[in-house]
Amino acid sequence: MIRRLQAILREKNIDAAIVFSWKNKDPNLAYLAGVNIDYSFLVVPKRGSPRLLTSKLEFERARRYSNIKDVRMFQKPAMEHLAKILNRFGPRVGLNKSVASINEFAHIRKNFKGKRYIDIAELLLQMRKTKTGDEIKKLKKACRITDTIFDRLVNGFNFRTEQDILDFLKREAFGFGCSLSFEPIVASGRHSSMPHYRGGNVRLKKGFLTIDFGVDCEGYMSDMTRTIYLGRPSGQEKEMYNVLLAAQRKAISDAKAGTKASILVDSVNMSLGKYAERMIHGLGHGIGVEIHELPSLHPQSKDIIEEGDVFTIEPGIYFENRYGIRIEDDILIQDGRPRVLTHSRKDLITIKR
Amino acid sequence: MIRRLQAILREKNIDAAIVFSWKNKDPNLAYLAGVNIDYSFLVVPKRGSPRLLTSKLEFERARRYSNIKDVRMFQKPAMEHLAKILNRFGPRVGLNKSVASINEFAHIRKNFKGKRYIDIAELLLQMRKTKTGDEIKKLKKACRITDTIFDRLVNGFNFRTEQDILDFLKREAFGFGCSLSFEPIVASGRHSSMPHYRGGNVRLKKGFLTIDFGVDCEGYMSDMTRTIYLGRPSGQEKEMYNVLLAAQRKAISDAKAGTKASILVDSVNMSLGKYAERMIHGLGHGIGVEIHELPSLHPQSKDIIEEGDVFTIEPGIYFENRYGIRIEDDILIQDGRPRVLTHSRKDLITIKR
Repeated sequence: MIRRLQAILREKNIDAAIVFSWKNKDPNLAYLAGVNIDYSFLVVPKRGSPRLLTSKLEFERARRYSNIKDVRMFQKPAMEHLAKILNRFGPRVGLNKSVASINEFAHIRKNFKGKRYIDIAELLLQMRKTKTGDEIKKLKKACRITDTIFDRLVNGFNFRTEQDILDFLKREAFGFGCSLSFEPIVASGRHSSMPHYRGGNVRLKKGFLTIDFGVDCEGYMSDMTRTIYLGRPSGQEKEMYNVLLAAQRKAISDAKAGTKASILVDSVNMSLGKYAERMIHGLGHGIGVEIHELPSLHPQSKDIIEEGDVFTIEPGIYFENRYGIRIEDDILIQDGRPRVLTHSRKDLITIKR
Repeated sequence: MIRRLQAILREKNIDAAIVFSWKNKDPNLAYLAGVNIDYSFLVVPKRGSPRLLTSKLEFERARRYSNIKDVRMFQKPAMEHLAKILNRFGPRVGLNKSVASINEFAHIRKNFKGKRYIDIAELLLQMRKTKTGDEIKKLKKACRITDTIFDRLVNGFNFRTEQDILDFLKREAFGFGCSLSFEPIVASGRHSSMPHYRGGNVRLKKGFLTIDFGVDCEGYMSDMTRTIYLGRPSGQEKEMYNVLLAAQRKAISDAKAGTKASILVDSVNMSLGKYAERMIHGLGHGIGVEIHELPSLHPQSKDIIEEGDVFTIEPGIYFENRYGIRIEDDILIQDGRPRVLTHSRKDLITIKR
């Protein structure tokens, strides 16, 4: 990972990058250092060895578990120590300006005068877009576990409230030694019309039930949605579900290496026809150490789908105060073609009420 | 909560504050709006009604669950919509510069020219320092649940690995409808010498076992540490434990309304004598909607302990590569005096191995 960053730094003529987690957490630190630590600075020069500066609290753990060999405890004030190191390199310093706060930046600038700060937020995202073999292995594992959990959820369906399902998802994820990659969405009945409704201590209602969850295993995250039905769906509801499912399947088959991400949005809109305006969110997003990475599947996205990308395809349609349906899978681009990593059933599952 | 902020804005002559969660999350948004939402802006004028601008995704949920009456969906681009609202108020705009990123700030400045941006990071922290009756109720509940979980942990102690204990803590927290307020620390044997060691899939070793965890119930967080012993402690180990326990008890009894937080650090150092240098972290921190709030119990802290403050007192001593001991309770200042909210046993619990 360090080599990837260094190649980018040389290409952009940046002398050294600082990646740090202080008040705001930067997932790139864990990605690059191989250990999830706070209160630490990673200095990566465009050539040569990176150095990790940590607080006393994190020092022993960093030394033991990080792939960075040169780990030091910073002397206080940390910024002055950092300045000493940075002053060995040229004036062009890379910084993640989408995470570093205004106050942190003021602090940094005060200590390292005569430097130019180049925003590397976008470069870091780009760096993480294509997954390595090891990353793909971890993502596949997360997807496999997600499928198993969903399978158990459906087969032993015996829940009274939305909260019961949330608790089940958490217990299951922990049972696999993982955590949840985000606060799951469990939305029954009218709640399903809110894409970000989180679920609560309320009885499950008849109608569509949206379950959107993922697991975080060894730092890599899955994200899957299935919409099932409690009770007997009407003919029109079944039709809506199948229109959406067909649109999702078509978008997946269109996802080939070299395709523009925005084309996939067009594909879904075309499939949905007059219901296209009911899709009030993006079509998908990359997954990895964060739950939202590149590529971004938005109408305005300039991203190109490439070999080794892993991302979601998740069209949804929402009818305010009535119901919503969303179907989401995780896709890997391998040998130029889409390979679906989540294998849970997609025909409309109905559960008697 | 909105009134508290408005009183501060008037005092500091700030015309309106913007509090938002976008890429970086600001816990003040949930505190003020009463609902945990992302991709939203809260505009609080120094007088009059606040307004919550949310994305389409969060709109219905915000309208249903927030205590803010005026909830709107923002038109895109969000920044221009926000500019229109802000332009009704005077030029002094409050902003949390410890959360807003450099890029977000650049965006804001481009859209609202002629404004002055005043950092309200510190004011927001101050605003949350003293807890309301309702907040205290929630914090007490979190502490009660923490005690129950620890009690069950000790009474049914039947764990093979650190991971088993981590899993137990998670399951228990969820069983109470809460989550964990942070990734717990379970450190056995030599691991206990790393204050931020997180625990892993390794057999529990003989010796001290540090368990540091808390629960997040209805958005309010507890934080407690107990160090127990697996096997038979030596005379010297028992003595070290009791030295630390006495220091912790003394610091708690010194925590009265009107006391400087730094005095409590002095108190602990005095009690620890020659072991004072072994305490390599702060003595404690406020708890609330975040796990680290004011007051800050550091040697350089200027904070004063006041009525209604809720904070931890957690001295620890660490012997590199050998062991560490930490004892932590949550304290409420009521009627000017310290009231301990966590009631778990503090004598050295030993478990046969």
